[in-house]
Amino acid sequence: MSWEKNVRRVVPYTPGEQPRGERIIKLNTNENPYPPSAAVLPSLIDIGKGEFRRYPDPKAEDLVEAIAETYGLTKKQVFVGVGSDDVLAMLFLTFFNGGKPVLFPDVTYSFYEVWCDLFRIPYTAKPLDENFHIRTEDYLSPNGGIVLANPNAPTGSLLPLSEIERIVSANADSVVIVDEAYIDFGGESALPLIDKYENLVVVQTFSKSRSMAGLRVGYAMGSERLIRFLQDAKYSFNSYTLSTPIIRAAAAAMRDTEHFQQNCQKIVRTRGRAERRFRELGFCFEESAANFLFVTHPLLPARQIFEYLRGRGIYVRWFDRDRIRNYLRVTIGTDEEMQEFFEVLEGYVYKVRSYGAGEETSC
Amino acid sequence: MSWEKNVRRVVPYTPGEQPRGERIIKLNTNENPYPPSAAVLPSLIDIGKGEFRRYPDPKAEDLVEAIAETYGLTKKQVFVGVGSDDVLAMLFLTFFNGGKPVLFPDVTYSFYEVWCDLFRIPYTAKPLDENFHIRTEDYLSPNGGIVLANPNAPTGSLLPLSEIERIVSANADSVVIVDEAYIDFGGESALPLIDKYENLVVVQTFSKSRSMAGLRVGYAMGSERLIRFLQDAKYSFNSYTLSTPIIRAAAAAMRDTEHFQQNCQKIVRTRGRAERRFRELGFCFEESAANFLFVTHPLLPARQIFEYLRGRGIYVRWFDRDRIRNYLRVTIGTDEEMQEFFEVLEGYVYKVRSYGAGEETSC
Repeated sequence: MSWEKNVRRVVPYTPGEQPRGERIIKLNTNENPYPPSAAVLPSLIDIGKGEFRRYPDPKAEDLVEAIAETYGLTKKQVFVGVGSDDVLAMLFLTFFNGGKPVLFPDVTYSFYEVWCDLFRIPYTAKPLDENFHIRTEDYLSPNGGIVLANPNAPTGSLLPLSEIERIVSANADSVVIVDEAYIDFGGESALPLIDKYENLVVVQTFSKSRSMAGLRVGYAMGSERLIRFLQDAKYSFNSYTLSTPIIRAAAAAMRDTEHFQQNCQKIVRTRGRAERRFRELGFCFEESAANFLFVTHPLLPARQIFEYLRGRGIYVRWFDRDRIRNYLRVTIGTDEEMQEFFEVLEGYVYKVRSYGAGEETSC
Repeated sequence: MSWEKNVRRVVPYTPGEQPRGERIIKLNTNENPYPPSAAVLPSLIDIGKGEFRRYPDPKAEDLVEAIAETYGLTKKQVFVGVGSDDVLAMLFLTFFNGGKPVLFPDVTYSFYEVWCDLFRIPYTAKPLDENFHIRTEDYLSPNGGIVLANPNAPTGSLLPLSEIERIVSANADSVVIVDEAYIDFGGESALPLIDKYENLVVVQTFSKSRSMAGLRVGYAMGSERLIRFLQDAKYSFNSYTLSTPIIRAAAAAMRDTEHFQQNCQKIVRTRGRAERRFRELGFCFEESAANFLFVTHPLLPARQIFEYLRGRGIYVRWFDRDRIRNYLRVTIGTDEEMQEFFEVLEGYVYKVRSYGAGEETSC
């Protein structure tokens, strides 16, 4: 007998490696390779006397207002949290309390499963099709809620807005969460649907398209009614989560639309070039609407490529998981980083081919 | 039938009012009246190129190291989170998984009850004695865990270290959390006991004695074994909670021991003066080891005093709760703030007495 018998048993999450060093190319955690808005740095310290010592504004009004203005919403349609992980966990906790299973794809963001276990929510993982696309019909049967990453991760595939609408409209008894962490890199957001469907909530983040993973800010947008339930739950557990400097910095970043758009455009252009290079080297992949590509090679095992690259200071993501064990998720870096990445990758592909493993095949 | 049937029902927490304005004296949320270390502001922006766009260090090593050095611990004995609320919630989730009820006082920090409800943990609130002191013997029977605020809030009373040790040593089968949010204002910390008792965990915060409520940082200290369980649980749910600038700023503040000590001494001195003034005005109170006093008046209803003060721009805390409905919790402000507070309070006391309600009574 000891205190240890009551300890919660968990499977610790393995985040993408965070190597620190000079000669490293880090394409493994979908961070943005460019800095955030120039307004961020001064905003962090543009704080009135006495503001540090006081509790933050629990409503984070400044930030909520900046988001509402940017997307043409009312402030009551916006909820903010400590990264989209915090926002998503709070959504699960608030809305997934039915007895029926919550639905999400078998290959998707791994935390959906974790939060279900954490909050004791039953769930069913619906297999993606053989091309890793969502099958809309899987989400039309009775359920306790739905969560879809769109574009999906780690696949990058986009479900068209018409299919999202089919799912949302067929599920008036469930809350449907559309997790749009990567939507700004080429997808069409479900946001316009929130005025039509009270059960839809759209989640976005500052970590990808706004280059602020280090600042931990995410947000949800939905009907005033839905957001109100979410606020009530959040305030009842922890009133003060976003710090004063971060609220200010994120508000300033949100208002810098021009920087945001240029940032996204650069990454989309680089992604286009990367697709051509991968194709030339014989890799196969579906179209990506995200800031990463999910690639496989018909002849070269993903794990070996992963380890070869890592040995040369280039980090991409390899998941030791069923169905995707032969895939690599490669974040889009700067043009210079991608150039160096492809030089090293090309060297590997040619070397292996020269040893005779290089029979031509196609995707 | 609708999505609303599965919404979590909660009683939203009512945080202390956060009025913003020029002519306000805010003694209602136990904030520190003085600014934090001068090292905080530059640290917020002393960030290498590219740090914003990258995920923060999930281990917050810089901050963990500063805390470990300050308290003479190993880094493996320290856990950090987004304010002590986040740390406490994670402790409840990790360690309170037995079938027996968790124990805490009936009059204490109101979130203990909230987290138990949130995580479906059974609990029993043990009544404080008639002077609002903890009865050690209440915590010696079988239980699923214990959480004690020491000094307690909102009473300010300190349980001597010898009594804490009695409780910890009698409960080898439970984790005992000692929540020391206010310990730096005159209490003796249970920290030296963590090397002796593996089931003890001590929680502290940057929000009070370090003047950083707006930055949201708290921490737990315990045996390496206990902290390891806590880390595993935390990483499995949400790897990145503390942002990069806040990690840096908190580490810098923790290293500024001189500022910290002077800050605490000023408040303790002002508390001594405030005790004398309250006594002169006929208020009753137990000794406080915190940055607030919990006072009652034998003739004047607390709620009326509260409203009178608020009408004059002075905010103190009144709880509409059994046993403490006739008490006010008054945060210790600067000497100037307390001077103004007592002038207004004195005016009220004399006015009411002159109307004949002023029969002398003693505490």
